[in-house]
Amino acid sequence: MKFARFAAGGKTHTGVVADDIIREITGDLFTNWEYTGNTFHIKEVTLLAPLIPNEIIGIGANYVAKREQLPNELPEIPVFFFKPTSSVIGPEEEIVIPAGVDKVKFESELAVIIGKEAKNVPESDVWQYVFGYTVANDVTAPQFFHPDGHWTIGKSFDTFTPLGPVIETELDPSSVYVKARLNGIEKQNSPTELMIIPISKMISYLTNVMTLKPGDVILTGSPVGAELVGAGDVIECEIAEIGTLRNTFVAAKERAKTC
Amino acid sequence: MKFARFAAGGKTHTGVVADDIIREITGDLFTNWEYTGNTFHIKEVTLLAPLIPNEIIGIGANYVAKREQLPNELPEIPVFFFKPTSSVIGPEEEIVIPAGVDKVKFESELAVIIGKEAKNVPESDVWQYVFGYTVANDVTAPQFFHPDGHWTIGKSFDTFTPLGPVIETELDPSSVYVKARLNGIEKQNSPTELMIIPISKMISYLTNVMTLKPGDVILTGSPVGAELVGAGDVIECEIAEIGTLRNTFVAAKERAKTC
Repeated sequence: MKFARFAAGGKTHTGVVADDIIREITGDLFTNWEYTGNTFHIKEVTLLAPLIPNEIIGIGANYVAKREQLPNELPEIPVFFFKPTSSVIGPEEEIVIPAGVDKVKFESELAVIIGKEAKNVPESDVWQYVFGYTVANDVTAPQFFHPDGHWTIGKSFDTFTPLGPVIETELDPSSVYVKARLNGIEKQNSPTELMIIPISKMISYLTNVMTLKPGDVILTGSPVGAELVGAGDVIECEIAEIGTLRNTFVAAKERAKTC
Repeated sequence: MKFARFAAGGKTHTGVVADDIIREITGDLFTNWEYTGNTFHIKEVTLLAPLIPNEIIGIGANYVAKREQLPNELPEIPVFFFKPTSSVIGPEEEIVIPAGVDKVKFESELAVIIGKEAKNVPESDVWQYVFGYTVANDVTAPQFFHPDGHWTIGKSFDTFTPLGPVIETELDPSSVYVKARLNGIEKQNSPTELMIIPISKMISYLTNVMTLKPGDVILTGSPVGAELVGAGDVIECEIAEIGTLRNTFVAAKERAKTC
């Protein structure tokens, strides 16, 4: 089932998408909802980020180029990072390149959406806590990475986390390809089996640290091929079973101040 | 004015504290609220974390020991980090030391609470966006810091962000002392003028990166004197004008799994 959040008639709605028709729903996406009876044609609405996340948790450097490169031993402490929810935008919204920076990096990713509170969950049970999946673009300004290794600022700018176009609840995350096209040219295209830390391990590890909550979004890492891009570039992040998340990069109008 | 969140009669309430009396309020803390007419004696309620933060943003290594050590030039990119809201607890709650770790670090801090959406705010104007202040303990398990410098896991465990006891809205943050007592013995006691990056600069810098939202909490750094502690230790973080945030460290019951 595909869920969308969308604007129509000056209001924000949620609905279930099938073919080009969205059937509006009401209630809590994660616990109980019902159809309102209203329908919209997808061409008459503006798709928004399919949810407002509770927390956004990312994992760093999680893909190899080829299966032979998968390590035998997993890292003891994976590189996780948080992105603020204020960085979320939806399909077709502009990604703003901070002033004082020419280029930023796109990173197409499969995003996992948690549907139930999860604490100390073994790997075998994690799927019960997953609500669905969307496509994410983990935009990064590496120039704002701290020399001591802190990525916070470089990943936190407004507009740096496009999500969408929909949440797909019926996906087998082990058998999809994560793709990106820059100005129409393919730059990323890897199966999720090239992840170093698989999704089940990632979720289980996190639940042994923190309580995951409904609406938490986990960005599962980006395949090889991410590049620096500039104003005017158009990026399409795609997972065929979910859809295409298309955004254009623009230059900032206001100059960012530094300390 | 001092705001408290508290449990009484099986429900969660918010109120204004004066002497030992809490006058219950209803509505939105940041925009408009009114008194319900109900009052509680502070001894008959359980104080909770004074808010559920939207985002928790911390700054690293932000105090010097003496005024003479304050640098002439500020760092170009400050070390900021996020903590998940799932790590928040209130006064008197137990801080759980993760399994497999003997010791964790306490860090007493002044926490700024944002009250209005803030974007690209110059230093001189930041105070308009501050709702108030509370005391925070930025608990850390340095053993879970990634060798490449990522602090995420080491700062994200459940119970690692005690906040409280109240939000004080009438504070001059430039003239307070941030203190900590471990088992009754003073370990931290520094005026906020020993901050390397002052609060106004910190907030202005952040608003040039991300849109700050009502309920965002900024942990402004911890004075010299933080130590590693273990199960059974009692930590009191204190800013006299706000109050004392007291918590006890306990060992985890369930073993954390690593990848």
